[in-house]
Amino acid sequence: MGEKNIEIKSLVIEGRNAVLEALRSGKPIDKLFVLDGCQDGPIRTIVREAKKHDTILQFVGKERLAQLSETGKHQGVIAYVAAYEYAEIEDMLELARNRGEEPFLILLDNIEDPHNLGAIIRTANLAGAHGVIIPKRRAVGLTATVARTSAGALNYTPVAKVTNLKKTMEELKEQGLWFVCADMGGTSMYELNLKGPIGLVIGNEGDGVSRLTRETCDFIASIPMKGDIDSLNASVAAGVLAYEIVRQRMM
Amino acid sequence: MGEKNIEIKSLVIEGRNAVLEALRSGKPIDKLFVLDGCQDGPIRTIVREAKKHDTILQFVGKERLAQLSETGKHQGVIAYVAAYEYAEIEDMLELARNRGEEPFLILLDNIEDPHNLGAIIRTANLAGAHGVIIPKRRAVGLTATVARTSAGALNYTPVAKVTNLKKTMEELKEQGLWFVCADMGGTSMYELNLKGPIGLVIGNEGDGVSRLTRETCDFIASIPMKGDIDSLNASVAAGVLAYEIVRQRMM
Repeated sequence: MGEKNIEIKSLVIEGRNAVLEALRSGKPIDKLFVLDGCQDGPIRTIVREAKKHDTILQFVGKERLAQLSETGKHQGVIAYVAAYEYAEIEDMLELARNRGEEPFLILLDNIEDPHNLGAIIRTANLAGAHGVIIPKRRAVGLTATVARTSAGALNYTPVAKVTNLKKTMEELKEQGLWFVCADMGGTSMYELNLKGPIGLVIGNEGDGVSRLTRETCDFIASIPMKGDIDSLNASVAAGVLAYEIVRQRMM
Repeated sequence: MGEKNIEIKSLVIEGRNAVLEALRSGKPIDKLFVLDGCQDGPIRTIVREAKKHDTILQFVGKERLAQLSETGKHQGVIAYVAAYEYAEIEDMLELARNRGEEPFLILLDNIEDPHNLGAIIRTANLAGAHGVIIPKRRAVGLTATVARTSAGALNYTPVAKVTNLKKTMEELKEQGLWFVCADMGGTSMYELNLKGPIGLVIGNEGDGVSRLTRETCDFIASIPMKGDIDSLNASVAAGVLAYEIVRQRMM
């Protein structure tokens, strides 16, 4: 039941892009709060779109919006929607089959920062990945901040939550997937063949990929590091690796 | 982390003598808040000194100053000092010469989110860029959050602040640099030659690259977008493009 409560929090979508994307993708919005007197283009577009969908609109003052806001970055609009449903991994494999593509999944080994999770879901969508898999424990879930940072991608890219990442990887291996994680001391990503059915594993912000997960991977890919510090931001690393997969698949 | 907290405190300078001293000693001040309507001698001296240094001035009411004040003794002036010293562009070109590499600079056209700025400086360091250039106005400066998010890269990678990004680009063109910006409708980044002396321009989080800046660029590069939404997170886009430059230079 504790988990249900967390999901209730994720009912709130804030910010113009995120709200507009939610409306356009047909998400059932229970109620839309709009800053009273705000007449600029993006807000008018949102209000028009909301009316098209028979959404309940409520115009409120600044103070009320500030009270409702979880992120402090509502930009004049806050929507209450049905909680994001977690997908099944089978849905992702089916999405790949329907598109006639080799499966491309992104697995997150305990990403803790909601901005990173949102940015990675956004990247997954644009890089053409078929889904994002997160572990049930210790990692961040699909909160309002994640929805906003994903810039709407959460409406399109399926996200599954699993109890045991290693077990999930082993099951997917039986279905033909290869797993590659980003870590130091691996093979340069430019020298690996990343064209086949693949699961890209991204580690935790501070600790990287856990030992168990790394041992379950088939390859360790390294991003060339030409500087003085240790590692890229987790969502940047995910982007660089995801686009190396995109590049190889386009060749 | 304790040390970072000390740096946060030292970012704010309050009170007439302290602010005037900071200005006269050439400390890099990001922004100076002055009590609106205050016309006495010391304040006028501070304003005159600030203008001499091209400091961004903002006149605000009593309530706003009280909010900003940490000590409660601002005497009508509060200055935000850059935690780090800004570099000169010449330092970056010299760094490239010393390393025997073609210059590789990253220019930010009004990045507003300090987390994005920090992540981009981190990426610049690891991708081997010789510096990051940010505009003086409207963009975020080198705050404590930027320093923290850069994961130490701010200690190694020079950051310069310029008054006019377009003018800076034109001066660098005379020194042989080519400029490429990321935008929709450009040439796929895989098809561009990014090996020469280059300035990579990253646009604002919401609005992308401004018209003037885009017109000053030699190329427009596009990252392949295979999804349903519009754009990657700005720091992820910077990472993907910076590493395409790294890849081409490694070939």
